[in-house]
Amino acid sequence: MNSNINQLINLNSRLLLASQSPRRRFLLSLLGLNFDTTSVDIDEEHFLSVNPNDIVCELAERKAIEASKVNKDYIIITADTLVFLDNHMLTKPINQNDAYTILKRLSGRTHQVYTGIAIFNPISNSKIIDYEKTDVTFRHLEDEEIWAYIITGSPMDKAGAYGIQDDFGAVFVERIEGDYYNVVGLPLCKLYQMLKSII
Amino acid sequence: MNSNINQLINLNSRLLLASQSPRRRFLLSLLGLNFDTTSVDIDEEHFLSVNPNDIVCELAERKAIEASKVNKDYIIITADTLVFLDNHMLTKPINQNDAYTILKRLSGRTHQVYTGIAIFNPISNSKIIDYEKTDVTFRHLEDEEIWAYIITGSPMDKAGAYGIQDDFGAVFVERIEGDYYNVVGLPLCKLYQMLKSII
Repeated sequence: MNSNINQLINLNSRLLLASQSPRRRFLLSLLGLNFDTTSVDIDEEHFLSVNPNDIVCELAERKAIEASKVNKDYIIITADTLVFLDNHMLTKPINQNDAYTILKRLSGRTHQVYTGIAIFNPISNSKIIDYEKTDVTFRHLEDEEIWAYIITGSPMDKAGAYGIQDDFGAVFVERIEGDYYNVVGLPLCKLYQMLKSII
Repeated sequence: MNSNINQLINLNSRLLLASQSPRRRFLLSLLGLNFDTTSVDIDEEHFLSVNPNDIVCELAERKAIEASKVNKDYIIITADTLVFLDNHMLTKPINQNDAYTILKRLSGRTHQVYTGIAIFNPISNSKIIDYEKTDVTFRHLEDEEIWAYIITGSPMDKAGAYGIQDDFGAVFVERIEGDYYNVVGLPLCKLYQMLKSII
């Protein structure tokens, strides 16, 4: 596959998406870019940063550092997405009751989705790190709607216990302010601009 | 297919999406609803309304009136999406140069996408008509990016000469304010709420 976006970015070496997220892999493939994938393991529980935008950038950079140790011939892309409500981080639910508690808290309110992106280019020995933020507003949810979503199983592997691309995610989210693809897990407009600037 | 959303809405008769848009058919299928499709033909060039929200509601209602003449046993859904910049309607491009002119005008600016939805329920002899509006902001586009998109052919059948779900659409749109699915052609959150209220 050699898309027009490939030609615009004019890649001089192969891309490596260091992420095990199937949603990120799908989104990057939407751009028609040629890329390989790998997974990278870091301690995501601990970080030095305090602000949400700094935390996602720190985690994305540490993933890129880790991935670059064993993948010398690639331009490496990493990302980290976190969900915040009232500046408090929402993790993946630990069980169905926890998923209910999280979705109940999101009901009728606006929360924030942050994604940090790190791109390391070993050819030019350069790196670029940036983030995207999207405000997401849920309409008021009925309990039966929340439980109908939970029993699909989909909330269980997702920070904030929802996916905006899910059937229920689509009817829970009333509006967003920012990049939709950021909420799915990879802000494509920001990523494209970063790739153009580093290559 | 019998999704959890089907059970929540508790449909008492079959749904008919009266739209030839493959994107609308895809979006409605995302909700896992059982539905049939048909096309409906009205004069979309002329309308009595003046304001964008009134125009899309008028066109959606006229489509529903037309479709209900020959489909008596269905709950009928119709929609009409229009794109406005500075309160001026943007149509589908008539050729590649026109597509360039439209995309150049959208570059670096915020425009509005309106979708009107009409739902007619012949069982209860009721109807509901509403609309959704989303602000869409393009980043500044380079001429080579605009032309690279145009030669894919995708802008030619789209009002405003872009699809937010396209590869280039994804990297042109910096941010939105409102429902993403409205920009694709069918605001799912609004539609779901309308279906729940009418059935």
